[in-house]
Amino acid sequence: MARKTYALGLDFGTNSVRALVADVQTGREAGTGISEYKKGKQGIILDSQNTHVARQHPRDWINSMQEATKQALGQAGRNIKTFFPENIIGIGVDTTGSTPLPLDKKGKPLAEHPEFKNNLDAMAWLWKDHSAYAEAREITDLAQKIRPHYLDKCGGVYSSEWFFSKILHCLRKSPQVFRAAHTWAECSDYIPAVLTGRQAPETMPRNICAAGHKAMYNDMWGGLPDEKFLARLDPRMAELKARLYQKAVPVNKLAGLLTGQWAKRLGLPERTPVAVGAMDAHLGAVGAGIRPGTLVKIIGTSTCDMMVAGMRKEIPDIPGLCGIVPHSILPGYHGLEAGQSAVGDIFNWFVSCLSPCGMGHTELTRLAKKLKPGKSGLLALDWNNGNRTVLADHRLTGLIMGQTLHTRPEEIYRALIEATAFGAKIIINRFEEYGMKVNQVINCGGISEKNDLLLQIYADVIGRPMKIASSSQTCALGACMAAAAAAGTKNGGHPSLVAAQKAMGGTRDKVFHPIPENKKIYRRLFQLYRDLHDGFGGVGKTGFSKIMKELLDIKESI
Amino acid sequence: MARKTYALGLDFGTNSVRALVADVQTGREAGTGISEYKKGKQGIILDSQNTHVARQHPRDWINSMQEATKQALGQAGRNIKTFFPENIIGIGVDTTGSTPLPLDKKGKPLAEHPEFKNNLDAMAWLWKDHSAYAEAREITDLAQKIRPHYLDKCGGVYSSEWFFSKILHCLRKSPQVFRAAHTWAECSDYIPAVLTGRQAPETMPRNICAAGHKAMYNDMWGGLPDEKFLARLDPRMAELKARLYQKAVPVNKLAGLLTGQWAKRLGLPERTPVAVGAMDAHLGAVGAGIRPGTLVKIIGTSTCDMMVAGMRKEIPDIPGLCGIVPHSILPGYHGLEAGQSAVGDIFNWFVSCLSPCGMGHTELTRLAKKLKPGKSGLLALDWNNGNRTVLADHRLTGLIMGQTLHTRPEEIYRALIEATAFGAKIIINRFEEYGMKVNQVINCGGISEKNDLLLQIYADVIGRPMKIASSSQTCALGACMAAAAAAGTKNGGHPSLVAAQKAMGGTRDKVFHPIPENKKIYRRLFQLYRDLHDGFGGVGKTGFSKIMKELLDIKESI
Repeated sequence: MARKTYALGLDFGTNSVRALVADVQTGREAGTGISEYKKGKQGIILDSQNTHVARQHPRDWINSMQEATKQALGQAGRNIKTFFPENIIGIGVDTTGSTPLPLDKKGKPLAEHPEFKNNLDAMAWLWKDHSAYAEAREITDLAQKIRPHYLDKCGGVYSSEWFFSKILHCLRKSPQVFRAAHTWAECSDYIPAVLTGRQAPETMPRNICAAGHKAMYNDMWGGLPDEKFLARLDPRMAELKARLYQKAVPVNKLAGLLTGQWAKRLGLPERTPVAVGAMDAHLGAVGAGIRPGTLVKIIGTSTCDMMVAGMRKEIPDIPGLCGIVPHSILPGYHGLEAGQSAVGDIFNWFVSCLSPCGMGHTELTRLAKKLKPGKSGLLALDWNNGNRTVLADHRLTGLIMGQTLHTRPEEIYRALIEATAFGAKIIINRFEEYGMKVNQVINCGGISEKNDLLLQIYADVIGRPMKIASSSQTCALGACMAAAAAAGTKNGGHPSLVAAQKAMGGTRDKVFHPIPENKKIYRRLFQLYRDLHDGFGGVGKTGFSKIMKELLDIKESI
Repeated sequence: MARKTYALGLDFGTNSVRALVADVQTGREAGTGISEYKKGKQGIILDSQNTHVARQHPRDWINSMQEATKQALGQAGRNIKTFFPENIIGIGVDTTGSTPLPLDKKGKPLAEHPEFKNNLDAMAWLWKDHSAYAEAREITDLAQKIRPHYLDKCGGVYSSEWFFSKILHCLRKSPQVFRAAHTWAECSDYIPAVLTGRQAPETMPRNICAAGHKAMYNDMWGGLPDEKFLARLDPRMAELKARLYQKAVPVNKLAGLLTGQWAKRLGLPERTPVAVGAMDAHLGAVGAGIRPGTLVKIIGTSTCDMMVAGMRKEIPDIPGLCGIVPHSILPGYHGLEAGQSAVGDIFNWFVSCLSPCGMGHTELTRLAKKLKPGKSGLLALDWNNGNRTVLADHRLTGLIMGQTLHTRPEEIYRALIEATAFGAKIIINRFEEYGMKVNQVINCGGISEKNDLLLQIYADVIGRPMKIASSSQTCALGACMAAAAAAGTKNGGHPSLVAAQKAMGGTRDKVFHPIPENKKIYRRLFQLYRDLHDGFGGVGKTGFSKIMKELLDIKESI
């Protein structure tokens, strides 16, 4: 019998690092660990003067990685008699993104330099930082004018959350930080570089997932945006380009081998293979079993809706998608990313901000389950945080209609869930309208495990069975799969990421099937949702879209 | 010095009778009394099988009238040394309406007959009873076809709350009650008839206020709807017409003189003049100081917006108004009634049904006061109970838009108040579009006294000063004015209702003036409100109105 092998997946989230030790042959969990970041508010460093700011300190990543790994290895050792750290054949890394941080010439974070110790702009700019909203608009405007093809691959709008917006904003706001920064790296590049001793910018492996989805990297135009384009933003941005990278690679590639120092710190063998990093949602999709024809929905505070498509046939530019990037999810396939900018966040808003009748999610869910579709007369738009796909417009807001003098909180709660389901259906329809057939839907993420009501509504609204990934940690599991693929068969791993998925992934037995009578009513309600969506979203010609915009104009003018 | 004289106003509300003794020279309150009805739920007799049903027992009226009068006279005697019941020179009566009840040949309520003791259909059909919704549609359809002018005076739609809808429904549902009923009377006719011994149907004085606004009575077509029209509904309705009435008279006329029996029961002199009755909102408008150019807003769970216009110039049929009836408010003037179907009810819904963060009206008002107009980005429609004026469509529902993930309960609360203010402005605009200049707005009713925030928002939105009637019981005060006018100068009263108003009415010193910067923002928000209003209300051609209708269709089909 072959030696039993394991992989270590490290999942760098918004508030913590999770570590997972998984059996390379079956994907079964051997041990897990979690370590919350220590700095700021749950690991997020805020600026009381500017609510757009959200930063992280790279030292938090390092410390939590060490702690979570120790926990996971310890648990694996206790769970499985035959487990030893020496059985770990590879390490995979997924992180939030775009979360860039400025580095010096040696690849050391500026945040570790004494002179920038308390400078928020020298830290990592967390994905949800929106301080660069003006620069995002500037980049979008410029690209629309002179490089429209740059935008075609990222949904038509360059976001304030992304790589170049943040760097340009740093240049403007903290020129001393920008000057001191030799280069910038994504968290998903920085961690594998640290583990493999390839922090020096000229040797640092860069991942195509963050590059393609967040930095307009594409082989079609030779990598990152061209110098002329960057120079139009600022000549110093063009100069920076040479100190960034020429080439980005997919997640099944080796980033390098674990250094002696890090082997000691983590308690693992030296020279353990470390895979190139990727963003969490993308490895989450891998962990959930993404393949052509399968849509993976990662449902949390927001959603990511991921698909892949073979590279032989050309993929059209699908309007409203957040990104279409070769190799970004599965090597050898186009990775397609869509998403809803708020799902769980909307339910949390209703419960936390409004606290209706003092009820929490459990009680509201219990009551909402008893309601029949359509019976409340309510209809809502799921735009409390704008709309990512297909409208790609963050300047949209929530709406609820149909209230009477008897409307109950659980009716509103259910209407909000239904609204997110309608939004999900719009995304699936968009994929299919552009020839991306959806044969199955696999859900993952916290809400999909906990909320039967939501999955049943999704099945009824979308009109398809809703499956659930077997792992409750699909991101870390995806990282384990990447580790197994990067390690390769010679190390007891897998020949490819797809092979790793087949061996290590799967879905649960419980599937939510559409209930025919509900499906019928939701088909009618969806027509009405679409009328609202198109009318207020500016797709139709009704002029209703100007109402939302003008409300925001007024709000912002006060 | 002339003898000091007083009037007694009796205000028959939904849950109680209020009695007011007021100084005829100054309108000052001498004493008040209130007596809640004893039967049913706060005086409303419900049917657990049919939520549309809302009835009252006429005995409740009689008992509470006696009790409230005793209290008011007692209080007046204690307050004012020179007061004696002999100083009461007249009695005025206002009641809810349309609240018809079936009577036998002698004018005795069928509800007092042993065989109908527990029959809800033999009781008074309270204004808010909606069981006759199908008959209302039938009457509206028929009138549209063969007597469109009947509808022109009552807003284009005959309501399920009104006289003939209720009687026709009784005929269909309880033919034995309909057969036993010699005639039907409004509460506002029944009470003065009882007090003056003119209960016998052939002698019973009928008031033009209820007749004109609720029973399509108009001198233009010779009184009540013609027999042919009624026969098309049912031949028995045409037969009933002869047993109803030929002539209705205004509130400054004498209904008769107090009988000896009732003089004893109330502790008042025999042969005290009793004025013809009227509906509460109409005498409320009188009590608040209505005159040409003055709009009186009675703000409670819903609103009534009342105006009067001289009869010399012809009043156009104003689309969407609830009623345009000669002499219905002030004799010698057209009485015009508009209204919003829910105002306080919407705020109560938000607080009671949603109970956001456990906050009540006081706390929400305190927080909402701190907000700046437009800053929440919210906009709402005030249609949780349909729209009375100007759309005259009860099949409309509430809407709120502009929510983010940070929207707070007090922002929603304020947006709901603003929505009712926008709705109020639409009504004022409609009056003025049809040549009814509004020179001042006087508010009365519970909310206008208690809620400074609301009045300030109304001033800012409507762009005019908001005055408040000095009396907090304008309906009962209006009834006192009617009593003083009906008694006339020879009895120490007033020569006319207008003279009584001048002597006995007034507004408070505190006036809410528009704040210029708020007014500016609300002007922009009102444009958006109007877009929503016209779009969802079906005025525009956007097709959005079908969304609300279809939602209701679905709701009602389940």
